[in-house]
Amino acid sequence: MKLLEERICKEGIVLPGNVLKVDMFLNHQIDVKLIAEMGKEFYRIFSNEHITKILTVEASGIPIACAAAAFFDVPVVFAKKGQRKNMGPDFYTAEVFSFTKGSEYTMHVSKSYLSAADRVLIIDDFLANGAALTGLTDILGQSGASLAGVGIAIEKVFQGGGDKFRSRGIPISSLAMIASMDNGEIVFRRNDCY
Amino acid sequence: MKLLEERICKEGIVLPGNVLKVDMFLNHQIDVKLIAEMGKEFYRIFSNEHITKILTVEASGIPIACAAAAFFDVPVVFAKKGQRKNMGPDFYTAEVFSFTKGSEYTMHVSKSYLSAADRVLIIDDFLANGAALTGLTDILGQSGASLAGVGIAIEKVFQGGGDKFRSRGIPISSLAMIASMDNGEIVFRRNDCY
Repeated sequence: MKLLEERICKEGIVLPGNVLKVDMFLNHQIDVKLIAEMGKEFYRIFSNEHITKILTVEASGIPIACAAAAFFDVPVVFAKKGQRKNMGPDFYTAEVFSFTKGSEYTMHVSKSYLSAADRVLIIDDFLANGAALTGLTDILGQSGASLAGVGIAIEKVFQGGGDKFRSRGIPISSLAMIASMDNGEIVFRRNDCY
Repeated sequence: MKLLEERICKEGIVLPGNVLKVDMFLNHQIDVKLIAEMGKEFYRIFSNEHITKILTVEASGIPIACAAAAFFDVPVVFAKKGQRKNMGPDFYTAEVFSFTKGSEYTMHVSKSYLSAADRVLIIDDFLANGAALTGLTDILGQSGASLAGVGIAIEKVFQGGGDKFRSRGIPISSLAMIASMDNGEIVFRRNDCY
């Protein structure tokens, strides 16, 4: 998605440790017009998939998921992050190691909001090594819901998470695919999104 | 706002300790149509205030703030929550005690995204004792930005936070004002929102 790539080039900051900071329009300040365009693009890609629910994880996935949900006309469910390993019988849970924070958290979703009747589009802001996505698909598996696809704003292709899921046949569409960020230079891999 | 009150009556769950759970449409699963109506209502109330930015706090404030921002055509900035007391010189910070979680956290906003040139609408999902709002207004004060008003989805009037701010002349509009929740019965206080 050209609009997103342009913003990443203009306002993204590459930090040591393969961190791409897009606080200016996505992770701290939010450009709601850009987010709406991203939601529209996810709808264009997945509109024939009979989606019943969009699943994301707090916090930065929420605005993108909501923007997409407005086009799909379905509810958003956001997984919560906590430290309590034993969440009780009312939740689907997954242990996720956050490489950004260097610590583990328990991702959880109430059983009330995901079931085998759902056909789910997962949306998240970043896909790097795939830790958060592993948690979300794990939770989806527990619920019995079917996975229609995964929509990602920014995929850091060189960290391998995306291709690991694609090799398992999971359809992932990333609006911006970063092939490398060596020496602070962002190089995109052209994708099939546009 | 009648639509919101009706949803609270229909799907809200009153838990011990004056907790109102609205996970069905606001805090875990999100009804994006309802949220869009809430955003529109905040725009109706504050449209003459020359808002330049909407400030909220992660996570549940984000969808409502984004819905409103689409009408105001301004960016959203969401305060982040963390445990690190010393965030360094690049952040406005405030210590907030969460009564829901029974612990303190550091609310922080990068100095890049709020300045004295901004006229800010604060939006949040709940207003109870006012702890989060105190943090947000504290951060706003540090930035020098002016506060145009506060838009709240659900105010638990009986916990006193809202009236504390109103007595200081801060314009607060809450879309649903709960006067009491004794014995699980939700009683609304009629307000000036509609």
